Amino acid sequence: MSTIHEDSVVIDTLQHSNWDRERFEQLREGGLTAVHVTLAIWENTRQALQNVAGWYRWLREHGDLIALVQSADDIERAKREGRTGVILGFQNCSPFEDDLAMVEIFHRLGIRIAQVTYNIQNHVGSSCYEPVDSGLSRFGRNVVAEMNRLGMVVDLSHAGERTTLDSIEHSARPVAVTHANPLAFQQHPRNKSDEVLRKLAARGGILGCSPYPHVFGEGHSSAAEWADAVAYAADLMGPEHVGVGTDSSFNWPDEYLTWIRNGTWTFTADGGASLTGETGWPTWPEFYSSPADFPNLTQALLDRGFSDAETSGIMGGNWLRFFREGFEPAQ
Amino acid sequence: MSTIHEDSVVIDTLQHSNWDRERFEQLREGGLTAVHVTLAIWENTRQALQNVAGWYRWLREHGDLIALVQSADDIERAKREGRTGVILGFQNCSPFEDDLAMVEIFHRLGIRIAQVTYNIQNHVGSSCYEPVDSGLSRFGRNVVAEMNRLGMVVDLSHAGERTTLDSIEHSARPVAVTHANPLAFQQHPRNKSDEVLRKLAARGGILGCSPYPHVFGEGHSSAAEWADAVAYAADLMGPEHVGVGTDSSFNWPDEYLTWIRNGTWTFTADGGASLTGETGWPTWPEFYSSPADFPNLTQALLDRGFSDAETSGIMGGNWLRFFREGFEPAQ
Repeated sequence: MSTIHEDSVVIDTLQHSNWDRERFEQLREGGLTAVHVTLAIWENTRQALQNVAGWYRWLREHGDLIALVQSADDIERAKREGRTGVILGFQNCSPFEDDLAMVEIFHRLGIRIAQVTYNIQNHVGSSCYEPVDSGLSRFGRNVVAEMNRLGMVVDLSHAGERTTLDSIEHSARPVAVTHANPLAFQQHPRNKSDEVLRKLAARGGILGCSPYPHVFGEGHSSAAEWADAVAYAADLMGPEHVGVGTDSSFNWPDEYLTWIRNGTWTFTADGGASLTGETGWPTWPEFYSSPADFPNLTQALLDRGFSDAETSGIMGGNWLRFFREGFEPAQ
Repeated sequence: MSTIHEDSVVIDTLQHSNWDRERFEQLREGGLTAVHVTLAIWENTRQALQNVAGWYRWLREHGDLIALVQSADDIERAKREGRTGVILGFQNCSPFEDDLAMVEIFHRLGIRIAQVTYNIQNHVGSSCYEPVDSGLSRFGRNVVAEMNRLGMVVDLSHAGERTTLDSIEHSARPVAVTHANPLAFQQHPRNKSDEVLRKLAARGGILGCSPYPHVFGEGHSSAAEWADAVAYAADLMGPEHVGVGTDSSFNWPDEYLTWIRNGTWTFTADGGASLTGETGWPTWPEFYSSPADFPNLTQALLDRGFSDAETSGIMGGNWLRFFREGFEPAQ
């Protein structure tokens, strides 16, 4: 039995579960070195502060299992200490409101990744669901520049095509797609075109591939198929530009799904990532039903023919390299 | 000519001026090693964040003159580097709103001192102007305990007598009166009774004596009289429990004084610290018309007969010792 999973730095660049001790134990069970968690979907500045403070409390209360990550060194320390590093992030720039100064405030509070927008057009840019994507706004360019200055990673996962391409171009530093799949693997608005993936890689960016049913494809169910998505991206981008971003979202009631889809922006039920209108959480594939299943992902990559080094890179080494530069302040 | 001023760590535990480069240059001219500045008078959480971010910007733009202080070591570094350390503080717990978690948020953002209340009764306690002071509230006790845990200094300068005594008693760590005078030296609601000063010192606290006209006394105008106030406190508390807190507030229009007095709590003009009803800023005594005059304070203490060691302690050494313990997290 290969020890490649145990020996590797294993990083998941998106999990947004309803956290409790059992969920933190699953991270350890899955051998996760670090996980990017979500502190804002629709929250404004004030509301996001409460989520930050809530994570500080969890980090104190479950310090035997999890540890705060503010730098790549913190990820390596977590590996040595047998804890799972927690990278604090936003899935929306809503906590910045229209105030450029809030980027530095949240950076100082520990936020290291922010997605330009969640499911709608905001001050910064457009989501992949907007009928017209006008690209990165003037404020958006300022936000990207400020994130570049501070060392906060720009995440384009839910962004529309033009906003994504604009951000890749305007960012002075590599950007990330923390959780999506190649569009050619699965047609879905959230997945990324070949053009985006090529330009992302050309600028040093990484795609985190996801088994989340809506973007993985309802017709896909096997670990081998997930490895196909990874292989497609690796062929196009180079294996060093591919990682894992599961978009894990466990332990939530269906009402929470309604909230993250509708927020306060619509009074009519929005489908979000569901293109077929069902309202509940989708059923995860059997090979990935919780973060404890992470070794299955490593095995799927090895079975697909990735070398040990490539597999180790995709499972976390690539993100570690990316974060080592991305979490440092600009020179 | 004595070099005691130049050789000492010089600390002023309150200045709330309308800051600009000229004001920062005056700090250097006065030989100030560190100054406690005010980021909130009436501000709520969201508004206080903007003030924090504004100071981050000033610290970047005027980094040749000022430097952020988060520990006693930072004060000593400022002394070595010939810059003035800036200790970020609140004159009100209003930025915490009624949310205990905000104490940690602002501590992490760099806030190291918070006054329990400004001029009114709030969630935490009562000011010295309230007809009935009910003391430290249940939320107030939680806030004090959280500040104790984190290493944020409790400031009782504007607090009422009962709130002050309650805070001294309930705080597990020494507390401070950053800017006031002995009541016996000058009758004013803001000044502190002998009982308060004795109990403050008995618990390791410090009083910062102020030449601010309203609390210094309109009839007092000389540096020798300011040294009398210090001497009274030193006799009562011991010279190691006395420091300087000027309450400097320069470069503001009169409209700002109206704002800090009235906030949003009254539609009728409130006199604030003025007991005689005048509405403009008071005239500062000739010996202290800006922080550039700080050497006059040192000289006044020497002239009053304080030893070099006592003078150096009162001018800043005492506060440095206090902050070395007070800014550390609880064991």
